[in-house]
Amino acid sequence: MKSILINGEVKSTIRVLDRGLQYGDGLFETMAMRNGKIHLWDAHWERLTYGCKQLSIPLPDKELIENEIDLICDENKEQEKFIIKLIVTRGEGDRGYRFSNVQNVTRILTSHSWPDYPNVYQTEGVVVRYCETTLSENKKLAGIKHLNRLEQVLARNEWDTDEFQEGLMLTLSGDVVDGTMSNIFAVKDNTIFTPGLTLCGVAGVMRKTVINLSKKLGVSVYEKTFTKVELEQADELFLTNSLFGIWPIKIIAKTRFTKVGEVTKKLQDELVKFRCK
Amino acid sequence: MKSILINGEVKSTIRVLDRGLQYGDGLFETMAMRNGKIHLWDAHWERLTYGCKQLSIPLPDKELIENEIDLICDENKEQEKFIIKLIVTRGEGDRGYRFSNVQNVTRILTSHSWPDYPNVYQTEGVVVRYCETTLSENKKLAGIKHLNRLEQVLARNEWDTDEFQEGLMLTLSGDVVDGTMSNIFAVKDNTIFTPGLTLCGVAGVMRKTVINLSKKLGVSVYEKTFTKVELEQADELFLTNSLFGIWPIKIIAKTRFTKVGEVTKKLQDELVKFRCK
Repeated sequence: MKSILINGEVKSTIRVLDRGLQYGDGLFETMAMRNGKIHLWDAHWERLTYGCKQLSIPLPDKELIENEIDLICDENKEQEKFIIKLIVTRGEGDRGYRFSNVQNVTRILTSHSWPDYPNVYQTEGVVVRYCETTLSENKKLAGIKHLNRLEQVLARNEWDTDEFQEGLMLTLSGDVVDGTMSNIFAVKDNTIFTPGLTLCGVAGVMRKTVINLSKKLGVSVYEKTFTKVELEQADELFLTNSLFGIWPIKIIAKTRFTKVGEVTKKLQDELVKFRCK
Repeated sequence: MKSILINGEVKSTIRVLDRGLQYGDGLFETMAMRNGKIHLWDAHWERLTYGCKQLSIPLPDKELIENEIDLICDENKEQEKFIIKLIVTRGEGDRGYRFSNVQNVTRILTSHSWPDYPNVYQTEGVVVRYCETTLSENKKLAGIKHLNRLEQVLARNEWDTDEFQEGLMLTLSGDVVDGTMSNIFAVKDNTIFTPGLTLCGVAGVMRKTVINLSKKLGVSVYEKTFTKVELEQADELFLTNSLFGIWPIKIIAKTRFTKVGEVTKKLQDELVKFRCK
């Protein structure tokens, strides 16, 4: 799993003056490659497009990137599934935050082994904690998957055991927003709720997919602000992420859910069908 | 001005899997090199030390970095003054936010030409605007000079003319915090005020120096929260930055200061003396 393509060239380094390194001035997408096809590619591309617009980074040519992804897939064709990560930075510039003279975006494609998540995370659920590291609020950066990820880095490193599979992050005022690498959903009285992401958080591609699948199943989905207490009063809780799909939450802090909820199970089944299409 | 040293080696690229690029997982210092000596090196090192502690990044060896800086100075000895930028990242890791297995920090030293700020910015003052891009609040990241700089990037690119020399950034609730590349000070009734930086902002090395010089001059300095209106009621306003030192503010939004204030001028003079020591 060593293929790296930078602006179409096989190499493994970028220039130090690239603004991706200097300021985290860029975006990324982490994508599931299954049987030679990127799952939810259109949704990933749509989020990248929106991110580029928000940061005023010129959107790279889609066909060019698709061709480069094909090259990486060719090299890894013996792998049934693996991860492709796409990074787009504003490119190389002079020192200073001003970017009006920056010309060429940098596109980076890397492949990574599939994570070895045990199957029981899907079938029986995961154990989740709350993180102390808060999520800060900025309308312009909310929702997009930019390269400024120190908050997630600090939150994820509050624990280093296998006791917890994910940590939930809150705003300074105590609203639950999302996990370090996932989005959170709550089911209450057969209705689905998930935090809105207009001030912070990442609008996950799987989050969007699950919202669409829910509607298809006739279950209403609403955006809602949750405190910890409100969240734990749900009938079912689950996490979404474009790699693992849907993980039911078995335990959150001291609240235990005795079995995988019905709505969660239905959505998992629907997602499997959707993936096979 | 092309010298680049990465972990002591002369080269100009870093590995793509470096977490500095992947997540902005690192810190930097932008330093003024004058006549073969880094101005305020101890204060820069102190901030870097605090930043490493906050992010749990192992602090590189000081002597090692000093030796590497000496190498860069040797190469640029014909320059009376130039900039040295030091970046320290957590180093190369696997995909994912977890960093417990990351072993070796990356240290990057680059040299840059001195910016061509006209002398009138010092003697007559600068024109400043307010930015629409807000600063988000996170206790763990406040004060340190980390690599997550998208807010400053977006704020600095709200204007692209020479009409303004700096933009001030505010919190979502309307408190003025700092400039995109500087700290802000207000003088009122012979007392100095500057915003506190416990929730956001960068604790500038020159900010600290100016606070110390003020005390030496017998002028009290207090941390204070400002709205725009409160700020503009000051007798004098000035900006600080480790490269340009002290810039008086001549115009902020529609408020005009007719001449460089007395306290500002005294501090500028004191800073020149301090630099010559």
